[in-house]
Amino acid sequence: MPDYRAPLTDMAFVNKELLGLDHYQQLNGCESLSEDLWDAILDGGAKFAENVLAPLNRAGDEEGCGFENGQVSTPSGFAEALRQYGDAGWQTLSIPEAEGGQGLPGSMSTLLTEMTAAANYAWSMYPGLAHAPITCIRAGGTEEQKATYLPKLFSLEWAGTMCLTESHCGSDVGLLRTKATPHGDGSYSISGTKIFISGGEQDMTENIIHAVLARVEGAPEGTSGISLFLVPKVMVNDDGSLGERNTVHCGSIEKKMGIKGSATCVMNFDNAKGFLLGEENRGLEVMFKIMNTARLGTALQGVCLGEASFQGALAYARERLQMRSLTGAQNPDGPADPIVVHPDVRRMLMTQKALVEGSRAFIYWLARLNDLTQHGNEEQIAEADDLLSLLTPIAKAFCTETGVEVTNIGVQVFGGHGYIREHGMEQLLRDMRIATIYEGTTGIQSLDLLGRKVMGSGGKLLRGFTKRIHKFCEAHNDNNAMTEFIEPLAAVNAQWGEITMKVGEKAVENADEIGAASVDYTLFGGYVALAYMWAQMAEISLAKEGDFYAAKVATARFYFQRILPRAEAHARAAVAGADSIMDLDESLLML
Amino acid sequence: MPDYRAPLTDMAFVNKELLGLDHYQQLNGCESLSEDLWDAILDGGAKFAENVLAPLNRAGDEEGCGFENGQVSTPSGFAEALRQYGDAGWQTLSIPEAEGGQGLPGSMSTLLTEMTAAANYAWSMYPGLAHAPITCIRAGGTEEQKATYLPKLFSLEWAGTMCLTESHCGSDVGLLRTKATPHGDGSYSISGTKIFISGGEQDMTENIIHAVLARVEGAPEGTSGISLFLVPKVMVNDDGSLGERNTVHCGSIEKKMGIKGSATCVMNFDNAKGFLLGEENRGLEVMFKIMNTARLGTALQGVCLGEASFQGALAYARERLQMRSLTGAQNPDGPADPIVVHPDVRRMLMTQKALVEGSRAFIYWLARLNDLTQHGNEEQIAEADDLLSLLTPIAKAFCTETGVEVTNIGVQVFGGHGYIREHGMEQLLRDMRIATIYEGTTGIQSLDLLGRKVMGSGGKLLRGFTKRIHKFCEAHNDNNAMTEFIEPLAAVNAQWGEITMKVGEKAVENADEIGAASVDYTLFGGYVALAYMWAQMAEISLAKEGDFYAAKVATARFYFQRILPRAEAHARAAVAGADSIMDLDESLLML
Repeated sequence: MPDYRAPLTDMAFVNKELLGLDHYQQLNGCESLSEDLWDAILDGGAKFAENVLAPLNRAGDEEGCGFENGQVSTPSGFAEALRQYGDAGWQTLSIPEAEGGQGLPGSMSTLLTEMTAAANYAWSMYPGLAHAPITCIRAGGTEEQKATYLPKLFSLEWAGTMCLTESHCGSDVGLLRTKATPHGDGSYSISGTKIFISGGEQDMTENIIHAVLARVEGAPEGTSGISLFLVPKVMVNDDGSLGERNTVHCGSIEKKMGIKGSATCVMNFDNAKGFLLGEENRGLEVMFKIMNTARLGTALQGVCLGEASFQGALAYARERLQMRSLTGAQNPDGPADPIVVHPDVRRMLMTQKALVEGSRAFIYWLARLNDLTQHGNEEQIAEADDLLSLLTPIAKAFCTETGVEVTNIGVQVFGGHGYIREHGMEQLLRDMRIATIYEGTTGIQSLDLLGRKVMGSGGKLLRGFTKRIHKFCEAHNDNNAMTEFIEPLAAVNAQWGEITMKVGEKAVENADEIGAASVDYTLFGGYVALAYMWAQMAEISLAKEGDFYAAKVATARFYFQRILPRAEAHARAAVAGADSIMDLDESLLML
Repeated sequence: MPDYRAPLTDMAFVNKELLGLDHYQQLNGCESLSEDLWDAILDGGAKFAENVLAPLNRAGDEEGCGFENGQVSTPSGFAEALRQYGDAGWQTLSIPEAEGGQGLPGSMSTLLTEMTAAANYAWSMYPGLAHAPITCIRAGGTEEQKATYLPKLFSLEWAGTMCLTESHCGSDVGLLRTKATPHGDGSYSISGTKIFISGGEQDMTENIIHAVLARVEGAPEGTSGISLFLVPKVMVNDDGSLGERNTVHCGSIEKKMGIKGSATCVMNFDNAKGFLLGEENRGLEVMFKIMNTARLGTALQGVCLGEASFQGALAYARERLQMRSLTGAQNPDGPADPIVVHPDVRRMLMTQKALVEGSRAFIYWLARLNDLTQHGNEEQIAEADDLLSLLTPIAKAFCTETGVEVTNIGVQVFGGHGYIREHGMEQLLRDMRIATIYEGTTGIQSLDLLGRKVMGSGGKLLRGFTKRIHKFCEAHNDNNAMTEFIEPLAAVNAQWGEITMKVGEKAVENADEIGAASVDYTLFGGYVALAYMWAQMAEISLAKEGDFYAAKVATARFYFQRILPRAEAHARAAVAGADSIMDLDESLLML
């Protein structure tokens, strides 16, 4: 496995220089976040990720999860690491102090998660999913529910899940069939089978609190008849002690391509006792609160595993000796040159670096906007909400698709040694691959972006972002050093509007035009968003001296010269229309 | 696992209508290949692939290979399938009748291999590698060596390997250290360790003939001091019976991302007895004969696994019900519409189809050119050699990279069900992933193309191909129905020359410009080559009636509108120059 080292220098650059720590001073209730505290949190998180989690990652993939007689076993060391994580209070970093947490904004959790999830993605799913019932209960729970469940979930003595998917119902949540029968006392009998439940069963915590979507008997069909329930694995007595085992059981676990240390469970609810969270038939509203955070967290997966892959590939490229540089031997005393001297290897590494660092800046910015929606003033909330509505699906789709590319490159740099399991490079690709699927596929994100957000707002949400970019370009028009970045950024930014007009005109005639354009449209937007981030990072770095800033400028230049041209291909495909996709009757796809 | 069905309709279209069966009549020694025989071979191969090999594929991945006490066990059923394959004479389809084979041209083996390898890639590695010693012995062996080894290799009573890679020496074959000490009687003692040896040990055949690259004591350093040896696992007595066990042993097998049913072995040669093939120090010449065929065979892997993935994805898209078409319910009596109605799902399926069928046509054409180099007249040989020199590295790089894309799409169409192992979609991606690495990475192919072939010939080899495309475009200039294909084809064809000029000019100043441009240049070439194939297929299909031809035209249109635009992104990146890649000192890549 590559030896993961938290990229603290870059994390500090983005937070302190690009986005600024003064952000925290404007957040109601988070003013105590000083630079010293920031440094201490990052340092502590890095140590935990590097020293506790990273060493469990390869072994966790090899060992995987076991299933016998309804019991799930997790890989060696996972439980102890979870205990340490809970004991250290990491799980409540962004829970308000009044509720018993550290009172830090959510963006600090994003930084922590980048490190823990990069070190061991499969492990990070357990504390990640334990946030699902926390968020649901905080959003819709009664005081009694909060008192009963939150303290144990905060300490990670208990974990949790989000039970949504059923075998016939994935993207189309309206089809779900799990039934809830009211007992008349606020409790319900929940019956049905959920699949793909991460952490549905495990051997690490004494209880598991399932957040379950189900349909109350007689509720409307479709998405307007879905309610949210809490279903504990073990019932909780009035005095807080554990009572009877509830009738929710793990039927089996999936064999998967990756994240093998994370137990993916089939969960059978057989008249399990559940408690309504919030109001009947309004379960999806609460769920969507989780989904937005989860989408950003999944976008971050691309940065996490991309960074790990980049670190591994770079280390290997520096030590692996094969062939001579075409410009003359660089390592004349050795039998060959390190492959990092070869331009195509360098191109692969620069691609990883440009995509990972660009995505990191993008996601951190969105996490900051998310802070504003929770702790900002009215105007800040409105602006942040609009930007997040537009940019969250772009981040989820783009950063996961490029995350697959980046981890794929990591395998390629290692050559045959990347394909065997020993070095862990192929694990990163396997662990990454799920991210374009769960929390809404790339296709679903793209429909959300183009259909609901862009067209649904009559272009208003898009203009909110492109105007921002336009202003940035205007502000640096006279800066000759920035011309190489500003000109192409301004061009793709303007092109974004043109593409939107063209697709919009077609869509008036034919609703399928939205779906036909959507993924290319979204990836186009992703390349523009990263160009905006890279232009900003270049601007800051051009004004400073030193190796780090020189590297930033060089990477920005690489992004604009070698990566951004892809936007043109997506632009052309996005405006090509639905005909070439839909004209062929599906019955003729294979003859 | 998707239920593999050999795509006989498309295979027949490409062979009979696009390329024409009259091809075979012009090949010296292959005139007996009638259409009836062609049909019978395809039918027999399809039955074997569908009924014998496909059912072993998922289980082979789950079971994998075992290793204990130096013995390798292969998955259940693999040995029996290999015996059937050998008994049926499939291994000698393209061996001349005079040598005991079926006397058919190599392109017929390509068709057979597409089917067997699509049905079970891991299994297909065993007969595939057994061709390595066959080719070496036929090219450089003595009559005695031929008599001793070929009959048993033909019948697959014995299998074989190609032993090239060592742990410190992959792409850079000149670094190899395995030593050969002459005994003075034509035999040598071979000592060294080879890695990544497919089929190095197995439990299916009574002997294994290793073709081994080694360095005779005192030979020059680098690639000019490498010789080729035959090293049998079990020595063969003068009467053909098996004698002593040779001192070549499997030290371990690799745990890999995919092709788990294929044993990838570390092979230790401890003064193993070996026999020189051909002349000392000229081993690479023979090896390169294998490599060219192997490169085309690896390109084909993209078609094989891409086809299997497409078939699986299409079947799933037709039965999986999620959400309603945006243009109104298509399956009003069901709870939702099949996802094949959604434009983005259709876009994914069309992308698979366009890339697989385009690559199939491209590779079949190259296989035909390969026939001409072996059975054609002088003029045909010269032209075919030139085209193959240029197009083989493009096919290897492009068809494997797009093969990874296509199998990746197959996972995506299945959503979460694609990520779990049960349906076999993720296996296809894992099995595919090695193909951009072995037989020369995408980077190595691209250096070969741009450096050795294009620049090395002063552009002559490229012009041989672009002139051909130009003539095709000229010939259809007046055909209005073809304008949508001819105009963009002519444009990218002309652009190819321009890109080459630009890169060539830069390369005069800086040799790194070749490496910096090479992969984007090669992928650009791949998109042009497929555009040429699709334009030809459209031309044939426009003139005919019926569903199959309508589907061909629609897929050609999709290729030109939605896939070919990618060429522009690669063109821009290819001419962007080496500076943005190389300016950043490698020591600054991570700070």
